[in-house]
Amino acid sequence: MTTKRAAIILAAGKSTRMKSSRSKVLHPIGGRPMIEWVTNLAKGAGIERIVCVVGEDNADVRAAAEGLGLDIAVQEPQMGTGHAVQCAKAALDNFDGQVVVLYADTPLISGKTLNRVFEAFETHALAVLGFEAADPAAYGRLVTQGADLHAIVEAKECTAEQLKISLCNSGVVAASAADLFSACDRVTNDNKKGEYYLTDIVEILRGDNKGATVVHASEAEVLGVNDRRDLANAEAAFQAVMREAAMVSGVSLKHPETVYFAYDTILEPDVTVEANVVFGPGVTVRRGATIHAFSHLEGADVGEGASVGPFARLRAGTVLAENAKVGNFVETKKASIGRGSKINHLSYVGDAELGDNVNIGAGTITCNYDGYKKHKTTIGDGAFIGSNSSLVAPVTIGAGAFLGSGGVVTKDVPDDALALARADQVNKLGWGARFRAVQEKLKAKKS
Amino acid sequence: MTTKRAAIILAAGKSTRMKSSRSKVLHPIGGRPMIEWVTNLAKGAGIERIVCVVGEDNADVRAAAEGLGLDIAVQEPQMGTGHAVQCAKAALDNFDGQVVVLYADTPLISGKTLNRVFEAFETHALAVLGFEAADPAAYGRLVTQGADLHAIVEAKECTAEQLKISLCNSGVVAASAADLFSACDRVTNDNKKGEYYLTDIVEILRGDNKGATVVHASEAEVLGVNDRRDLANAEAAFQAVMREAAMVSGVSLKHPETVYFAYDTILEPDVTVEANVVFGPGVTVRRGATIHAFSHLEGADVGEGASVGPFARLRAGTVLAENAKVGNFVETKKASIGRGSKINHLSYVGDAELGDNVNIGAGTITCNYDGYKKHKTTIGDGAFIGSNSSLVAPVTIGAGAFLGSGGVVTKDVPDDALALARADQVNKLGWGARFRAVQEKLKAKKS
Amino acid sequence: MTTKRAAIILAAGKSTRMKSSRSKVLHPIGGRPMIEWVTNLAKGAGIERIVCVVGEDNADVRAAAEGLGLDIAVQEPQMGTGHAVQCAKAALDNFDGQVVVLYADTPLISGKTLNRVFEAFETHALAVLGFEAADPAAYGRLVTQGADLHAIVEAKECTAEQLKISLCNSGVVAASAADLFSACDRVTNDNKKGEYYLTDIVEILRGDNKGATVVHASEAEVLGVNDRRDLANAEAAFQAVMREAAMVSGVSLKHPETVYFAYDTILEPDVTVEANVVFGPGVTVRRGATIHAFSHLEGADVGEGASVGPFARLRAGTVLAENAKVGNFVETKKASIGRGSKINHLSYVGDAELGDNVNIGAGTITCNYDGYKKHKTTIGDGAFIGSNSSLVAPVTIGAGAFLGSGGVVTKDVPDDALALARADQVNKLGWGARFRAVQEKLKAKKS
Repeated sequence: MTTKRAAIILAAGKSTRMKSSRSKVLHPIGGRPMIEWVTNLAKGAGIERIVCVVGEDNADVRAAAEGLGLDIAVQEPQMGTGHAVQCAKAALDNFDGQVVVLYADTPLISGKTLNRVFEAFETHALAVLGFEAADPAAYGRLVTQGADLHAIVEAKECTAEQLKISLCNSGVVAASAADLFSACDRVTNDNKKGEYYLTDIVEILRGDNKGATVVHASEAEVLGVNDRRDLANAEAAFQAVMREAAMVSGVSLKHPETVYFAYDTILEPDVTVEANVVFGPGVTVRRGATIHAFSHLEGADVGEGASVGPFARLRAGTVLAENAKVGNFVETKKASIGRGSKINHLSYVGDAELGDNVNIGAGTITCNYDGYKKHKTTIGDGAFIGSNSSLVAPVTIGAGAFLGSGGVVTKDVPDDALALARADQVNKLGWGARFRAVQEKLKAKKS
Repeated sequence: MTTKRAAIILAAGKSTRMKSSRSKVLHPIGGRPMIEWVTNLAKGAGIERIVCVVGEDNADVRAAAEGLGLDIAVQEPQMGTGHAVQCAKAALDNFDGQVVVLYADTPLISGKTLNRVFEAFETHALAVLGFEAADPAAYGRLVTQGADLHAIVEAKECTAEQLKISLCNSGVVAASAADLFSACDRVTNDNKKGEYYLTDIVEILRGDNKGATVVHASEAEVLGVNDRRDLANAEAAFQAVMREAAMVSGVSLKHPETVYFAYDTILEPDVTVEANVVFGPGVTVRRGATIHAFSHLEGADVGEGASVGPFARLRAGTVLAENAKVGNFVETKKASIGRGSKINHLSYVGDAELGDNVNIGAGTITCNYDGYKKHKTTIGDGAFIGSNSSLVAPVTIGAGAFLGSGGVVTKDVPDDALALARADQVNKLGWGARFRAVQEKLKAKKS
Repeated sequence: MTTKRAAIILAAGKSTRMKSSRSKVLHPIGGRPMIEWVTNLAKGAGIERIVCVVGEDNADVRAAAEGLGLDIAVQEPQMGTGHAVQCAKAALDNFDGQVVVLYADTPLISGKTLNRVFEAFETHALAVLGFEAADPAAYGRLVTQGADLHAIVEAKECTAEQLKISLCNSGVVAASAADLFSACDRVTNDNKKGEYYLTDIVEILRGDNKGATVVHASEAEVLGVNDRRDLANAEAAFQAVMREAAMVSGVSLKHPETVYFAYDTILEPDVTVEANVVFGPGVTVRRGATIHAFSHLEGADVGEGASVGPFARLRAGTVLAENAKVGNFVETKKASIGRGSKINHLSYVGDAELGDNVNIGAGTITCNYDGYKKHKTTIGDGAFIGSNSSLVAPVTIGAGAFLGSGGVVTKDVPDDALALARADQVNKLGWGARFRAVQEKLKAKKS
């Protein structure tokens, strides 16, 4: 890429309609804050200079933007989008390439679309991203003639005729830094809202004999988020894209409408995902693996042919090797599970390293926390852990070792050893008859 | 409110299409029987005199209506809606205010709408609640001229021209008691079905020079339930309303279509609800709390900043204090969980009172039932309960006490004490080799 | 049925768009492979001679078809549907009845529809199953005049005029064996794709003065599966049919869109199914039973008035008697649970036989696997199993017996006996203070 590019991300808006203690643009879609989506979009297009425009009250946004490596410009007070862009000028002072204006609350624009915006420079000085609105309502209208954009008119400033236009403004515009800032300098607030509209630059540049054009996107892609319904709608749009892509790539989603992806979920071909599965961030599922119904995964790597669930929860740091199996009501965390090993039922395996072909009985708990810190459990190949075992970490169970059911194992078990830690069983005869006699008496009292 | 108001709730219909041993109007929407929805609607409008018209065979309806404090009128045999209203006359004998006729199988009418019905009295003698039907089919049609309603014509009695009308009758009507009963007295059964139609009162009152008008509602709101598909549709309509209201009020429903509310669910602003959460009756979730995926709550109070799930079940009587945490595969019941206390994994905590900053290890069970009755477990501030503990109630664990893993605790543990109740561990060496030798033999036999 | 009938099932197609190591027609809908759906359709219509046409590379399809008792014909190379039918000729050599051509990737045609296809023989020599396509796109068009079908034209061969036709070809045709094969013999590959189209037989038979007609089906019913999106769509169509049928028959699906059926799920009237329930194959739920939210059942028989879940998993071989109860985080497998018996929380009960009124405490595990094989646990009427018990099978707990909490029971317990197997509890005083002192030191080091 020879042309230099910069992005201005507008993030100064109030979030009043979210009714949230957290700023709007920090709310997540697919497990990633909106501001990060837009940042990644810009970075993915090879844009290195990114200025984020924040309000003085958006301390959380500023912190997030700094954390993402963005330059910060403060807009205070907030006097419109044109003003916001001007606020970014200082931070981009020496920049003489192309600038795109993005919005931290418009998270779902694809890299392909952004590239099309930049491609529009080949023929026009200004590119505006537009969409056909199902219900144009309050959106700014794009007044066009053929491929040329003549003006963007905010809904409140529209004539009755202009209100009939369904091609609307996403807000995203791109121009050379020179044109963008020169035009913004000339924007006035002589309008019904008394704001400096960025959209006025279309007509200003036309006055300079610099033409504008519209790049088209779908409405779902440019959906802006103002309240929590919008947030849910954007989430739904994201999920629809992910489900479609997964199925096309060869993943079986038995009931796709019940599977929820994170922004970075990786499912290889011939993976099967049953009903009601939630993928948090950081999950890879490899070829031939099955994720059964009611499973919840995050930060997990599920190996080829492995089986997860139903009712399994894989937490961060879980690695299942080939053909490993995690069954129902099982939680794993920072756990490496070897090839063909099985944790079939009702267990918690955390801070653990299991070899191959280990069999963990139902009700097994790795007691990894002693109140001070977390400790590790290591289990060798082919070990057999009896049901209801408590493995008090740090502890090592040797390869081929056996643990009797119900034991509390506090000391290492050598390879091939059998470890027992249980009390003897005592049967007290006739006790049931006495029990029932008391029970009868209690019932008699009640009635 | 100066005008006296009464309601007649029609509940005498057969429920044959439900194919249920229970009467139709006892089936629930949002966890509350339909008849109770309608009763609450009337009570919410300040109506104190409510007569429920039941059939002789509806013993369960009669019992439910009596339980709700309604007066009962029996309609036997059932000769139409006009006849049903007449059957209620005796129970309202001395009443000289306004009467609204409601239906126990039309549960979702809002208080606002009912108020609009009463407001219509300012200009008309009779108010009828109508709706624009997407598919009018078998609904009675409202014949109007401007704001005036001229007649309601049952579909079976409609002319071809009238069948084209899409404005339909919900069945709900309101008039003065005098007008209503005087008109009902004059209704005949001279029609194709041989029934006394309540709807005939429009024309009868017009003959008295008393005008009628239509109050408009959405079709979803006046949806009547006749079979289990209708019941599911009404449930869906209710859920849609609840989800929308929650998001507007500042609750994040990440995937709103997967969250199910009860009629009385209270979620404060800045609560986050992930995918697949079911709220049974009696739940309050306070500001900043997160309900993770796959959680099931009923009769629970979740404190500010608390965290529930994934895969948690909170049953009646659960109270989570600020920042308390209930994790995966955990069931709580009649349990008070103090500030910052954690029950992270695979536990059952019932009939229990936990102080602040208690840590309950994985696999912990409060053994609250001894076969006779339920007993209580009390755990002091900062206590640490080791994994796989069995707490045999009644039992008290003191503040700052520690329980070793896998213990069966039957006696109280003093503050600050360490309680151990486990057998010693014995490692029997070389046992694994013998085991595998037998295993090999068994395999050889099979093949 | 006096007329002899045969079916040719086409299953030779490549499955490239599935991107699967498994052939397309082996992917399941409602838990049953597509090829089995079509086979059952044919068998259900009383068809005994069924030839499955497979490709040489479809070893898995061939094996499945043989497993279903079908005759096999190999089509190699694959030169079109007309050619595929010809390949089946040898296998049907002496057959002189009616033949229907079906498709292994078109699984949802109902028996009623297939009967209508055969009924069309009363008036026509050839019957073609057609449907009104919402988006005809690439479907073959049915050129009709009144009830007569004049031609089927593949989309690629259509005139602009023919492309406007919305009545499309499902591919299913039926004719006498004589007509079918005689016409197929005369099909040529003189077309844009250079394939032998089965569809050409319409015009060929018309040339013989043998008329064809169209039998109509819904688009959902004749949906063909080519990729995993189609598979998900077919699954959704199947689920919609099952949900509707269940509700009409008197089953309450509280949130029908969240309930997933298998092909053979049986729910009796007055069963209630809450949100998010997955039925795998082999489930029967009897009158008055309730399946609570988040439950997963397969191979289970749930008795009258029984209660399952929330968060229950019933696996193959589970039989719940009347009013039995399986609660949250409980897994059962090959388990017979007697009348009124309860497994309410966090348990694994496998290879077990429970009498009536047994109470299984929370955290109970049947330790059925000793590393060699599975063993059985037997529990008598009215026994009370304390929480966190480990029942090491083979073991028998007598009627009316009691097990203390947390015990590992390895020996049989006689009727009425109390069995204890737990270590004594020791309280070590003052230990907590020492613990916290260490904790403070560790914290001080960190900071």
